[in-house]
Amino acid sequence: MAKSDVKVLGAWPSPFVMRPTIALNIKSVEYEFLQEDLGSKSELLLKSNPVHKKIPVLIHGDKPVCESLIIVEYIDETWSSAPSILPSDPYDRATARFWAAYVDDKVFPSMKEIFIAEGVEAKKAAIQQLVDGLILLEDAYVKCSKGKPFFGGNQIGYLDIAFGSYLGWLIVTEKFNEVKLLDEAKTPGLAKWADIFCADPAVKDVMPETDKLAEYAKVLAKMRAASK
Amino acid sequence: MAKSDVKVLGAWPSPFVMRPTIALNIKSVEYEFLQEDLGSKSELLLKSNPVHKKIPVLIHGDKPVCESLIIVEYIDETWSSAPSILPSDPYDRATARFWAAYVDDKVFPSMKEIFIAEGVEAKKAAIQQLVDGLILLEDAYVKCSKGKPFFGGNQIGYLDIAFGSYLGWLIVTEKFNEVKLLDEAKTPGLAKWADIFCADPAVKDVMPETDKLAEYAKVLAKMRAASK
Repeated sequence: MAKSDVKVLGAWPSPFVMRPTIALNIKSVEYEFLQEDLGSKSELLLKSNPVHKKIPVLIHGDKPVCESLIIVEYIDETWSSAPSILPSDPYDRATARFWAAYVDDKVFPSMKEIFIAEGVEAKKAAIQQLVDGLILLEDAYVKCSKGKPFFGGNQIGYLDIAFGSYLGWLIVTEKFNEVKLLDEAKTPGLAKWADIFCADPAVKDVMPETDKLAEYAKVLAKMRAASK
Repeated sequence: MAKSDVKVLGAWPSPFVMRPTIALNIKSVEYEFLQEDLGSKSELLLKSNPVHKKIPVLIHGDKPVCESLIIVEYIDETWSSAPSILPSDPYDRATARFWAAYVDDKVFPSMKEIFIAEGVEAKKAAIQQLVDGLILLEDAYVKCSKGKPFFGGNQIGYLDIAFGSYLGWLIVTEKFNEVKLLDEAKTPGLAKWADIFCADPAVKDVMPETDKLAEYAKVLAKMRAASK
């Protein structure tokens, strides 16, 4: 597959964009990354995802695929030789999909809530909500990984990608709020998993640097404040 | 597979519950339907879906599977002999998943909005939003079905189940608001598709009767008004 046959329309701070890029790295598929300016979306983005007009979009040949987790499944099914991203057993697949949806529907909104909550009490409540959500995910980690390093076993799988893509923002959230969200006491499995995940060859070059992401988060917060 | 090995925890008015039951019917898998009282959830439901405490849950042997579309994929992968529910081609699978997510994220909230909107103008705006959403889906139908009766081709597939499960509520919404939502003028493909879908042997016994659903919707509306 020539590099130009696979393109990812994305933006470096987006956790959702990391999902297809990690999946392509796992499959050793070369791709061209087209950085989108979200203030002025490209014609290619608008044409490729006319319904939502959102990144990421994977363009394979001339076919656009949208929605980050759907793209990950597409990559797994298209470049179907090992390593597999989804587990092979139907029940394990359903479990991975369940927790990936949980991460998007519960963990991500809690992180967003911390970012926008105003006042000490509201921030504290939002942090607690996130911590509670992560404790449930710790339990899922113990069950899914069965003593192996990843949710997916010995290698990064679907749920690793789904949750791991938020780690950059989770670390920034820790820094901004002077709180430990993944720690030895409450989520020992996830704390260790996060280090191994971030150091993985498929991940380390696409995981944004914490300082750069923190700077970006400060700009976002200022824009939010100015728009009020 | 003995009937008692497969259970569905559900409630008859729920569009989400129809998804696993249609999928099981397509695969000719017998199942036991356990009607939940949502005012007083069963121990089995709370134990089977401790995270969301929501129906539907499929219990296969002693394993619970949650989230309606995840259950449909589980059924397709577990009873993997034909007929298939997901398309076989990865791009067609991604397309079906994309539009199924669209139905849940855009079409369903628009229907809900019509139900709760107050005042003539707000209702009109909500109806228009739904109609716009359905026109986009008509376009998807034309592309996916390629002249065949279903989104999935000659037989009911994943996206047929995802959207078709809302048809009962869509018809009730039409009745309550004296408006045609799927019609010959704006959505000719979907209008014809809806009739064929509802008459299908895998669907017709699990699709709620319109009058019964309309009565249920009236009770819901009264409860909502009383709780204000």
